[in-house]
Amino acid sequence: MAEGEVVVGWKALKSFCKRVFERLDVPSEDAEITADVLVRADLRGIGSHGVARLRRYVDGIRRGQMLPRPEVRRTYETPTTALIDGGGGLGPPVAYRAMLLAMDKAEAMGVGLVAVRNSNHYGIAGYYAMMALERDLIGVSMTNADVLVVPTFGKKAMLGTNPISVAVPAGKERPYVLDMATSTVPRGKLETYYREGKEIPLGWATDERGLATTDPARVLKNLASRAGGGLLPLGGEGELMGGHKGYGLALLVDILCGVLPGAGYADTIYPKAPDGRPLPANVGHFFGAIRIDAFRPLEDFKETMDDLLRRLKDSPKAEGQDRIYIHGEKAFEMEERRRKEGIPLHPKVVADLRAIAEEVGVPYELEG
Amino acid sequence: MAEGEVVVGWKALKSFCKRVFERLDVPSEDAEITADVLVRADLRGIGSHGVARLRRYVDGIRRGQMLPRPEVRRTYETPTTALIDGGGGLGPPVAYRAMLLAMDKAEAMGVGLVAVRNSNHYGIAGYYAMMALERDLIGVSMTNADVLVVPTFGKKAMLGTNPISVAVPAGKERPYVLDMATSTVPRGKLETYYREGKEIPLGWATDERGLATTDPARVLKNLASRAGGGLLPLGGEGELMGGHKGYGLALLVDILCGVLPGAGYADTIYPKAPDGRPLPANVGHFFGAIRIDAFRPLEDFKETMDDLLRRLKDSPKAEGQDRIYIHGEKAFEMEERRRKEGIPLHPKVVADLRAIAEEVGVPYELEG
Repeated sequence: MAEGEVVVGWKALKSFCKRVFERLDVPSEDAEITADVLVRADLRGIGSHGVARLRRYVDGIRRGQMLPRPEVRRTYETPTTALIDGGGGLGPPVAYRAMLLAMDKAEAMGVGLVAVRNSNHYGIAGYYAMMALERDLIGVSMTNADVLVVPTFGKKAMLGTNPISVAVPAGKERPYVLDMATSTVPRGKLETYYREGKEIPLGWATDERGLATTDPARVLKNLASRAGGGLLPLGGEGELMGGHKGYGLALLVDILCGVLPGAGYADTIYPKAPDGRPLPANVGHFFGAIRIDAFRPLEDFKETMDDLLRRLKDSPKAEGQDRIYIHGEKAFEMEERRRKEGIPLHPKVVADLRAIAEEVGVPYELEG
Repeated sequence: MAEGEVVVGWKALKSFCKRVFERLDVPSEDAEITADVLVRADLRGIGSHGVARLRRYVDGIRRGQMLPRPEVRRTYETPTTALIDGGGGLGPPVAYRAMLLAMDKAEAMGVGLVAVRNSNHYGIAGYYAMMALERDLIGVSMTNADVLVVPTFGKKAMLGTNPISVAVPAGKERPYVLDMATSTVPRGKLETYYREGKEIPLGWATDERGLATTDPARVLKNLASRAGGGLLPLGGEGELMGGHKGYGLALLVDILCGVLPGAGYADTIYPKAPDGRPLPANVGHFFGAIRIDAFRPLEDFKETMDDLLRRLKDSPKAEGQDRIYIHGEKAFEMEERRRKEGIPLHPKVVADLRAIAEEVGVPYELEG
C-alpha cells in the first residue's frame, strides 16, 4: 500500500457518493446508478474513472454543465434502434437506461442499437457492455470525449480517447470484456509517469510541434493550455507501427457516438461560451446488444467460447512470461479482491472526498 | 515503375480471372464476384490480396479445399440475423451474398447481422463493407484467418491477422472506409522488408522465443515451419504500447467470425488431416449493416460527416507533414488512378498468371 493511502469498503464508498448526488438534487435512482458506475471503476482497478472523478461531477452539476434533473427524450425509435436525447444530464443514468433499452430490443428482435446525444462523461465504457452479460447477450458500449488525441500526421488534438467496450459471455470461463481507449494510453498514465519523474516511451504522445516526445510534463502543459500536441492513437506516431489504425478506431467512435446521434464531435465537443464559461458538453454514446441464439444455440456458443479462451490461456508463453490473459480477466480478479479487502484511495482523492463532504453537507464516514 | 513490372488494364485482368474460375467449374456469377474482389484489391493498392492470390485460389479448388459448386445453406434466420453455411466454397461469393442479405435486413429492420461459417479466404474485408455505401448504409465486415499472430505474452501464433472493416457514407466528402488488420502489419510487409534486405522495427513480430525481433527472415522461416513466434498485434510486444488492445481486437474478430457462427477459431482453423493433407479451412465471416435514418435523417448525417472529415483534414499538421488522411482516402485516389492508367503487376505475379493460364487452358491476353 502506498504511503498515505486509505482503504475503504466499496459499499460505504458507494453510499457516500449516492448521498452526495442526492444532496445535489439528483433523483435517488440516478444517484444510485452514478455512484455504482464510479465505484465499479475503482473495484476493477480503473482509478482514473472512479471516485477520483467525483469532484468533476460535483463541479459539473454546480456549474450547470450537468443537469441533476434533465429532460430525457426518445427522439426517434424503431423496433431495433433508438435515439435518446440526454437533456444535458449526468452520463451514467442515461447511458444505463439506453443500454437497458438496447438489450430489450435485442431480446425482442435479435439486435438492439441505441445512440445518445446531449450527454456527459459516462464513466467506464465496460460498465454498460457488461450489463449484457447478465442476460447472456453480447454487449457493446462506446463514447466520445473531450479532445486529447491527435490524428495521424496532425498536431492538434481533434479526438477523444474514445473507448470501445465489448462484452461476450462464456460458459465456465470468465466472460471476455474488452474495454480499451483507442489512444495508446490515457492521460492519467502520463500523469503517473510525471509524478514519478519518469520519461514516457516514444509513441504515447506528441509535443506542440506534433512530434513524439518522452517528456510527460511538456505534453500535460500543452494539453492544459491547448498549445498543440496530445496523446497518440493506438499504434503511435505516423503509420509505421499502425498509428493510423488507432486513429481510425477513434474516428469510428466519433462517427457512431457523435455524428450518428447528432452529438458533439471532433473539436465541437465540450464547447465554451465566448466568455470562457463551459456550455453543455454534448457528449454522445453508442450502445449495442446482440442475442446469441439469433445465430446458434447459446449453450453451444458458450462451450466454444470456453474452448477458445482456454486454448489461448494454455498456449506456450513468451520467454520471461508465465501467463496469457483474456480481456477483463485482470479486472475481474481485482474486483473480487477489492470487494472483500476494500478499495485503496490515494491521499489526494481522500482529501477531495472530505472536501466534497463538507461542501455539500454529507457526513464523511468512510474510514475506521 | 519497378523493373520488370507490367501494367495491365483492370477490365482485362478481371475477365482473365473470371475465365480461370469458370474453367475450374465455378459458376459464372461466382466467378464474376471472385474476380471482382481480387481485382478491386489491386485497384485499391492492396496487392497482397489481389490477383497475386489467384494461385492460392486455383490450388485451393484443385486440392478440394475450396469447392467450386458448394451447397450453401441458411442454417438459421430471423428478421435481423442469419447464419449461413458456406459449404466449403470460395469465400467471395458467399461473403458477397451474406452482405447483400445483411443490407436487405437493415433496410427492412434498421439493422442486419449475418455470420458465415465453413467458408474460405474472402479477399479484402473492405470490399463487403463498401457495398453498403451504394445503399447509404453503414457497413461492417470481418473475417478470421490462418494463425499468424501471437497473443500478448504468448509465443505461439494463435490468431489470424483478423481484419475489421467499417464503411460510412458521407455527403460531398469521400466515405470513411476503415479496413485494418488487427496485427501491426500483415505478413506481406515482412516479405517486402526481407526482399529489400531491411530490418523490421521492433513491435512488428517476435522470434521463436516470443521476443520482439528485427529479423524478418527469422520470423518468416519460423512461421513456415511453425517453430514459434509470429506477427504482433497492433500495439506491439507486451502491454507498454497497447499490444493487449490489438490482441483484444483480434480475439473479438475470432469470437464474432469463429465462435458465433460455429466456424474454426484460434488454431482449429485451417486444419490438416493426419497425413498432412489440408482439410476444409472452415473460415468464418461476420457482416453488418445499419440504416442511418433509423436514428436521424440521412441528409443531416451526411452533412455532419462532411464537417467532421473536413475538420480533421483541415486541422494543423505535425512538423514535416502536409496532409491528414481520412481512412480509405489513399485507396480511393489509387483506385481512380489505376482504373485509368492500369494496374502494375510484379514480374513474379505475371509469371504466376502466365503459368495458371497455361495450366487451366485460358488465353493470357493481358499485355500489349
